[in-house]
Amino acid sequence: MAQIKDLGVEPFLDALARQSATPGGGSAAAIIGAMGAALVSMVCNLTIGKKKYVEVEGEMKDVLAKAEALRHRLTGMIQADVKAFDSVMAAYGLPKETDADKAKRETAIQAALKQATDVPLACCQAAREVIDLALAASEKGNLNVISDAGVAVLAAYAALRSGALNVYTNAKMITDKTFVDAKLKVLEGLLTGAEGATEKAYGIVKGKLS
Amino acid sequence: MAQIKDLGVEPFLDALARQSATPGGGSAAAIIGAMGAALVSMVCNLTIGKKKYVEVEGEMKDVLAKAEALRHRLTGMIQADVKAFDSVMAAYGLPKETDADKAKRETAIQAALKQATDVPLACCQAAREVIDLALAASEKGNLNVISDAGVAVLAAYAALRSGALNVYTNAKMITDKTFVDAKLKVLEGLLTGAEGATEKAYGIVKGKLS
Repeated sequence: MAQIKDLGVEPFLDALARQSATPGGGSAAAIIGAMGAALVSMVCNLTIGKKKYVEVEGEMKDVLAKAEALRHRLTGMIQADVKAFDSVMAAYGLPKETDADKAKRETAIQAALKQATDVPLACCQAAREVIDLALAASEKGNLNVISDAGVAVLAAYAALRSGALNVYTNAKMITDKTFVDAKLKVLEGLLTGAEGATEKAYGIVKGKLS
Repeated sequence: MAQIKDLGVEPFLDALARQSATPGGGSAAAIIGAMGAALVSMVCNLTIGKKKYVEVEGEMKDVLAKAEALRHRLTGMIQADVKAFDSVMAAYGLPKETDADKAKRETAIQAALKQATDVPLACCQAAREVIDLALAASEKGNLNVISDAGVAVLAAYAALRSGALNVYTNAKMITDKTFVDAKLKVLEGLLTGAEGATEKAYGIVKGKLS
């Protein structure tokens, strides 16, 4: 199959809807996060170089550079999620005739599940950073496109919580409880304050539109 | 420019990030909503025909048909949003030399703003329906892909609130207060209960993953 990022938007939506587990919610979360980052970039691009916003130009350039880096990271995760899921499926498909087979299969499944936990966790990490950048854009970006900063923060927050569901899904089946506890602790840290930052940005944008 | 739905996912993200107001948050909201609908469809497609889920098969078929119809409506809105925005810009660009010019221009602006309010409001309406379908999918869908029902509801809720910001943006500049009040009332109705339904679905999914 072609890389998802090279699919058209409509063929991607068709693939998402189809009776196949990939692409699924993991890839969708990465794309939604990437859309959030792209909208932050758009707001920055329409703020930088405008006389009225000269005082925030330095900060907007910094936000733009970070948003673009996050967008590219999140775009890479669209495919990484499919790959991680396919590895889990391949491990489940390994032979389980002998005890040696079974042990080898279980080791492969566990390794694949850890990878399939790390990918959405990385998506959560990136989405959390996009939320903070969207908040900065909502505070200082060009008023003419301020609603786009609001859409950016909503997209990033949806991507974060979606990634969390994908972490839980895979973590549930991992037997290494030390690994699971460590990952869930990182996730908890990313979720902490995320809703507050999102609602703060949304409130700022809504206030500017009233 | 090509229809956005025919762009690749990555070129679309590039276009979103670019220093141009379209495609922007309105198209992003429509795509995120369409992704939510597509994920509901995926959960239904992976539930229908499974012996374990035969009791909910009729309902899942009904949810699938509705989700697919909403997905196609939302996909159409990706381009409709750009078109509505372009009409507003075109109206602002009309000549304003004479009083007759000015009156004609103002009439054109107001008509275009009304259209640019109706498009995101239709997106909100569709996204609200996707939330309810995602809730049904989270309650009755195949457990193996239940996280996708969770991602679906988060996407739909982000699309609804994003659409709301686009309604506020345009409504703000409309002088016909009767029109504005009627549209804001419809929007308020769509937002009412949406957070509750979203958190209910998210809680059901998270509960199933614990």
